[in-house]
Amino acid sequence: TGTAEHQGMAKNTNMRWRLPLMCLLWEGAMIVLFGVFVRFGAEADAHWEEEKREMNLTSDMENDFYFRYPSFQDVHVMIFVGFGFLMTFLKRYGFGAVGFNFLLAAFGIQWALLMQGWFHSFKDGKILIGVENLINADFCVGSVCIAFGAILGKTSPIQLLVMTLFQVTLFSVNEYILLNLLHVKDAGGSMTIHTFGAYFGLTVTRILYRPNLEQSKDKQGSVYHSDLFAMIGTLYLWMYWPSFNSAISDHGDAQHRSAINTYCSLAACVLTTMAFSSMLQKKGKLDMVHIQNATLAGGVAVGTSAEMMLTPYGSLIVGSISGIVSTLGYVYFTPFLESRLHIQDTCGIHNLHAMPGLIGGIVGAITAAAATEDVYGKEGFIKAFDFTGVYQTRTPNIQGGFQAAGIVVSLLMAFAGGAIVGGILKLPIWGEAAAENCFEDGIYWEVPEDEESDVYHMHNPDKPASP
Amino acid sequence: TGTAEHQGMAKNTNMRWRLPLMCLLWEGAMIVLFGVFVRFGAEADAHWEEEKREMNLTSDMENDFYFRYPSFQDVHVMIFVGFGFLMTFLKRYGFGAVGFNFLLAAFGIQWALLMQGWFHSFKDGKILIGVENLINADFCVGSVCIAFGAILGKTSPIQLLVMTLFQVTLFSVNEYILLNLLHVKDAGGSMTIHTFGAYFGLTVTRILYRPNLEQSKDKQGSVYHSDLFAMIGTLYLWMYWPSFNSAISDHGDAQHRSAINTYCSLAACVLTTMAFSSMLQKKGKLDMVHIQNATLAGGVAVGTSAEMMLTPYGSLIVGSISGIVSTLGYVYFTPFLESRLHIQDTCGIHNLHAMPGLIGGIVGAITAAAATEDVYGKEGFIKAFDFTGVYQTRTPNIQGGFQAAGIVVSLLMAFAGGAIVGGILKLPIWGEAAAENCFEDGIYWEVPEDEESDVYHMHNPDKPASP
Amino acid sequence: TGTAEHQGMAKNTNMRWRLPLMCLLWEGAMIVLFGVFVRFGAEADAHWEEEKREMNLTSDMENDFYFRYPSFQDVHVMIFVGFGFLMTFLKRYGFGAVGFNFLLAAFGIQWALLMQGWFHSFKDGKILIGVENLINADFCVGSVCIAFGAILGKTSPIQLLVMTLFQVTLFSVNEYILLNLLHVKDAGGSMTIHTFGAYFGLTVTRILYRPNLEQSKDKQGSVYHSDLFAMIGTLYLWMYWPSFNSAISDHGDAQHRSAINTYCSLAACVLTTMAFSSMLQKKGKLDMVHIQNATLAGGVAVGTSAEMMLTPYGSLIVGSISGIVSTLGYVYFTPFLESRLHIQDTCGIHNLHAMPGLIGGIVGAITAAAATEDVYGKEGFIKAFDFTGVYQTRTPNIQGGFQAAGIVVSLLMAFAGGAIVGGILKLPIWGEAAAENCFEDGIYWEVPEDEESDVYHMHNPDKPASP
Repeated sequence: TGTAEHQGMAKNTNMRWRLPLMCLLWEGAMIVLFGVFVRFGAEADAHWEEEKREMNLTSDMENDFYFRYPSFQDVHVMIFVGFGFLMTFLKRYGFGAVGFNFLLAAFGIQWALLMQGWFHSFKDGKILIGVENLINADFCVGSVCIAFGAILGKTSPIQLLVMTLFQVTLFSVNEYILLNLLHVKDAGGSMTIHTFGAYFGLTVTRILYRPNLEQSKDKQGSVYHSDLFAMIGTLYLWMYWPSFNSAISDHGDAQHRSAINTYCSLAACVLTTMAFSSMLQKKGKLDMVHIQNATLAGGVAVGTSAEMMLTPYGSLIVGSISGIVSTLGYVYFTPFLESRLHIQDTCGIHNLHAMPGLIGGIVGAITAAAATEDVYGKEGFIKAFDFTGVYQTRTPNIQGGFQAAGIVVSLLMAFAGGAIVGGILKLPIWGEAAAENCFEDGIYWEVPEDEESDVYHMHNPDKPASP
Repeated sequence: TGTAEHQGMAKNTNMRWRLPLMCLLWEGAMIVLFGVFVRFGAEADAHWEEEKREMNLTSDMENDFYFRYPSFQDVHVMIFVGFGFLMTFLKRYGFGAVGFNFLLAAFGIQWALLMQGWFHSFKDGKILIGVENLINADFCVGSVCIAFGAILGKTSPIQLLVMTLFQVTLFSVNEYILLNLLHVKDAGGSMTIHTFGAYFGLTVTRILYRPNLEQSKDKQGSVYHSDLFAMIGTLYLWMYWPSFNSAISDHGDAQHRSAINTYCSLAACVLTTMAFSSMLQKKGKLDMVHIQNATLAGGVAVGTSAEMMLTPYGSLIVGSISGIVSTLGYVYFTPFLESRLHIQDTCGIHNLHAMPGLIGGIVGAITAAAATEDVYGKEGFIKAFDFTGVYQTRTPNIQGGFQAAGIVVSLLMAFAGGAIVGGILKLPIWGEAAAENCFEDGIYWEVPEDEESDVYHMHNPDKPASP
Repeated sequence: TGTAEHQGMAKNTNMRWRLPLMCLLWEGAMIVLFGVFVRFGAEADAHWEEEKREMNLTSDMENDFYFRYPSFQDVHVMIFVGFGFLMTFLKRYGFGAVGFNFLLAAFGIQWALLMQGWFHSFKDGKILIGVENLINADFCVGSVCIAFGAILGKTSPIQLLVMTLFQVTLFSVNEYILLNLLHVKDAGGSMTIHTFGAYFGLTVTRILYRPNLEQSKDKQGSVYHSDLFAMIGTLYLWMYWPSFNSAISDHGDAQHRSAINTYCSLAACVLTTMAFSSMLQKKGKLDMVHIQNATLAGGVAVGTSAEMMLTPYGSLIVGSISGIVSTLGYVYFTPFLESRLHIQDTCGIHNLHAMPGLIGGIVGAITAAAATEDVYGKEGFIKAFDFTGVYQTRTPNIQGGFQAAGIVVSLLMAFAGGAIVGGILKLPIWGEAAAENCFEDGIYWEVPEDEESDVYHMHNPDKPASP
């Protein structure tokens, strides 16, 4: 690692003052802003006893906490263990994958509570938070974790924090446009989280293009056990995705339905992923990269429509298609994107989030446009699409059009935002590593010093250990 | 791996067309059958608003989703992470353990939704599904994961899919006989899941007996970190087993009671397992195989009786006994089964599922037979055993007899079904590996190519890395 | 390992009869005591149908099971996977970390159900248990897991069982004094679990001081993958801590509030930990020890006050401070404690539990003292602090004083109890390993025999494998 550190020095990757300063200043800002703005919502405030009586609630069970807390915890696991471990597949970047994901998500959720709070939970000068805000903050950060997947191994922790600050801000603006101005439905975030997050990250990695990245090519692969660590991330994302897509749906049948649709879509996605993974290999062997990633596309692709009456077989179809598209993406698109468009996408988020996210947006638009009072029931129809107040006169067709518009807005926000933020991250002040030191934990982390020699000596029975 | 691949060729383990074809055809069939048959149940349908009013429900909380969804997610984790990682203990079969478990479970839950749906949720030509169906589908697949444990490392993914198709079918028939015809209680599935699944798998592995399996003996052991991966599976199964046994019990006290009984049984099981693991070793050292597996026997053994008034001390007794039986099984029975009965049981499912499953069935029969109105209360007694309608006149003794009959039926179904399915899997068309290539991921998976040389060079400070 | 075993023999670490005897005798005692004392509480008993009618409950949802079971499962994961894997960071003590934690926790929860039951759930000669008892048993065992962190790698499993027996007993006494006699609030256990558990463990490790521990210094570090295993523990503790602090709070707003406060505190803690970890390193690199541990201090430090009106920004402040204190502790205090006070603290529990626990107690006292009817509402104020019955006249100031007294009592109990138990554990009959064999699984576990040679040969392409 002598060479590595020498090179690191050359690019000055020393974080000693920059990282602490940024963390402490930002946390200080969070404290001040939370102090000024953030308070407990009615259901988390000690005044709730009185509130309950006023609202004629007879049971503590009516507190939103009990409707959403189990889903919240599942989503929380997806963000921190799911995304964190999914990215540990690289042989020498496990600390960075789990650790930087931890850092950016912990910062991001604070900033997201503020940004989303100003847009959605602002009353009398205060942001009133409850469990739904926590879920939404996790969702917002999910889009940053996705973008992180594209630049994994190539940026400094400071760059990640800067990206998080901007991306959370833009996410909240985009979300506000979609949900409030366009009155679009997107409970599982196919558009707001996946499409936006993925194209944002792909634009950033395009701007940060590193022509000499093949210098660290030997570290871009996995080892046997790093692939197993990554499977922990995969499975937690896969298992808890029904909670993700149903977490903020309406109470009752909508949450129930979202979970079922997502369960079905994901199950189908595994089969088509396995099929294409084997088919596209001369010897018919399965590729862990596909299993780790493309099996999840089914969750992304029903993000918008899961709470609608997509029906179980509709979900199977969507899941099947997205598994195929995603696996094809890993085999054909990713190399193309890198060689022709100079988009270096470490985790292949284009295949796991961008394309399935687009599918999800389109499926959502179609499902909304096809909705009828017959299928939903009179009341269910109004409730499902919230066709009340100024939206009373919206028809399914118009709603479908607005859903489609939501995709376009998300794409535009992602490209524009990604270009600007990519430009900022290109400034030579953030301590990024040289190309030959990418995908290497030793640059930003204390890596167990004695491993090499130690393991070697432990494993070599013929050679006495030297001090 | 040159030799390995050569041999693999000899047996033609190439999955390139067979696996994709099977996955795609079956997924296609699922889509058609779901399209014809599967719809949302009332609580997941958008018409629920109207339904709610008709049923006089005042709160969305009354939706079954909120009674069962947290348990469902725990069960889901058990099936995919629990069983998947439990089987990663082999040094070179981690991809197969986690990956094939993922494949067969994802297929199995779809087929189980249909099979169980036709038997239990069929109304006016449609299968109406809700969260309870998702749990039951996971349960059904659990029995396949158990059987997979017996043949782990010795079959091709195609064989696993074929087995899953048949086993899910037979499981559903057996379950129907027990629950509907015999009116047996088995909420945690000691009989339907564990006894049936384990003896089915043991019969299959008997039929698939490989006389030359010692050729891959060097790969049948674990390495240090593979044992730690397996402990992830163990702990998730252990921790979430109270959810498994209570997931489909009646609302209220029955779910509550099931969780407590299971918690107690599992705690006791850990102590007796540790005791016997140490005692049966000359040097008194603990064996990870026992800790990874026998500690779970307590959950299996209260599967039938957990929702009954087994009482906490009854649970401790059952858990203690099953830990002892299971550990003794690993030390004495497994070698005996292999050498005398030619039953090669990779994960020792005879010790973890078969014997504890039988104990569970018997304990359930005894607990049912011993039930009194005094212990359960007049209403509780009727509710606990569902002694209504045509079963109004059943006495505890008769119920105990039917419970015992349920064990016998499960065994017969397992032996007969396992023999037939084993025969089908013996056909030389499924691409199974040669004996010397068993327990080796390289046959069906792309394994990180550079690992050997890479790790070697990384660990050998004295030798420069050669290209 | 020849030498290791020789030395082990010299100290007679053979567990063959001692460990089984202790496990079986104690499990037998549990069965007898459970048989005499433990019964299902009303909500888990089959009589609940009648109870429900008497209490005028209209829905099964009112069963406490549905208010607390999801949190219970999260806490369960923290105890077994969280603490278990957090301690796997040592390169050769993963089996002991996960396995002994499993053993002591499984025993401890049974004994805790009895001890806490006698103090809190005893009616007409019976202990009546429900889901809240399960949570409290897990909590109690949590304090033992904490203490285990101080002596990790240096004790035999028998010593751990002895310690668990005594510590659970003392914990229950201390808890009774605090909650019942002093009428102190401590839902997340800053005082009862963390302060008590940590200072108890530190006192024990002080008594068991090993002057020659540097003989096993080579095994006190981590390797790359052991650090990733430890991160599984870290993340599960971090993610589920909101459930930990809210699990036994009052239904409704109190549980809701506890979760939000904890979420905020933990998020802030990650940022200050990262900041100080980088700042205190010459090259500004992050240290996995800090990330694995100090990031959790924020959960400990809001343990007492999370259910109070601490407010989100108050939580950010507490979390920020505790991250800083904890990281400083790892860099400066731990070496000091070892060299000057002869306190060998393997996992650094002084930094993760002791100091943050004290902060938590103090913050709780201040938050209680600062409470006003204005902030809580008239009813909320009474409910939050349970100022009813004989405590009707307590003022916030007096409550603050009692809270402070709770810290002092916990410390005294920990020091006194730790000294006595440490003395008992020092007896030369428990089979502890020699200093040079500490932190080595091979003493008490069957470690995969062939690993060394196997891995070596697998990795050495130039050398043919010898038998």
